[in-house]
Amino acid sequence: MKKKILIAGTFDILHPGHIFLINEAAKLGDVHVIVATDKNRETYSGEAPIVPEEQRLEVIKSLKNVKTAKLGRHDNDTLKTVEELNPDIILLGPDQKFSVDRLQNALRMKGLTHVEVRRLEKYYDKFKLHSSSFIKKKIIEKYKEKQLL
Amino acid sequence: MKKKILIAGTFDILHPGHIFLINEAAKLGDVHVIVATDKNRETYSGEAPIVPEEQRLEVIKSLKNVKTAKLGRHDNDTLKTVEELNPDIILLGPDQKFSVDRLQNALRMKGLTHVEVRRLEKYYDKFKLHSSSFIKKKIIEKYKEKQLL
Repeated sequence: MKKKILIAGTFDILHPGHIFLINEAAKLGDVHVIVATDKNRETYSGEAPIVPEEQRLEVIKSLKNVKTAKLGRHDNDTLKTVEELNPDIILLGPDQKFSVDRLQNALRMKGLTHVEVRRLEKYYDKFKLHSSSFIKKKIIEKYKEKQLL
Repeated sequence: MKKKILIAGTFDILHPGHIFLINEAAKLGDVHVIVATDKNRETYSGEAPIVPEEQRLEVIKSLKNVKTAKLGRHDNDTLKTVEELNPDIILLGPDQKFSVDRLQNALRMKGLTHVEVRRLEKYYDKFKLHSSSFIKKKIIEKYKEKQLL
């Protein structure tokens, strides 16, 4: 049976870095994506995403290597999300702020000893706009240039 | 044998409207996507896309119902692109500016009498940010709000 791989993120403006993470996860098994809710993202980073959660979810579901995708729990209980999905591996993205060790320990303390936490080390920067923030910045720069015309 | 469906566009910031067009095209046959080059988009609309062409192409290729995707010709010869791909159907999006009749006539005059041009009539507006422009506008609005703080 194929392994269950969990990845999670906001996926505000889709870019090849997201796709790279999903494709690398797919080499390990079936990819199950948890998409952060608007509220949780706002709590976590102080800013709500541009694109609403249901729309972000629909885009993620349309990707070739995504087996299932759903929104995170509304109570933002990460460990509960992991318990429900019961993955073999959690693959963190190269720039995700979670610590592998802390997440691994937290899972152990909850009895989820079989879940392995890994980080994708390679940062995919083949293209210029390799993050949602870079895309947003470029949109704002273009807007500012126009204001000066 | 499955029909060959051609769809074309810029796909600057991917949104569910794009995915809807691709999925509707997939109901008719195998979907082949032509992604507008930066230069052609700029010539056509007066403005280059935010996301560079190779990056837009990579995102489109990662979608479940896309069989093949490539950049448009650098000489922007639409009829030549159609001739090379030789599709059964060209499916225009609901807000694409091409006229079905004019494109159909132009193809006939080039001897491509077997290519049928159709338009997807349904505009997919289930979500708030159902166009690349709406997403860009929201990013700019958020930026402007912050400037006022």
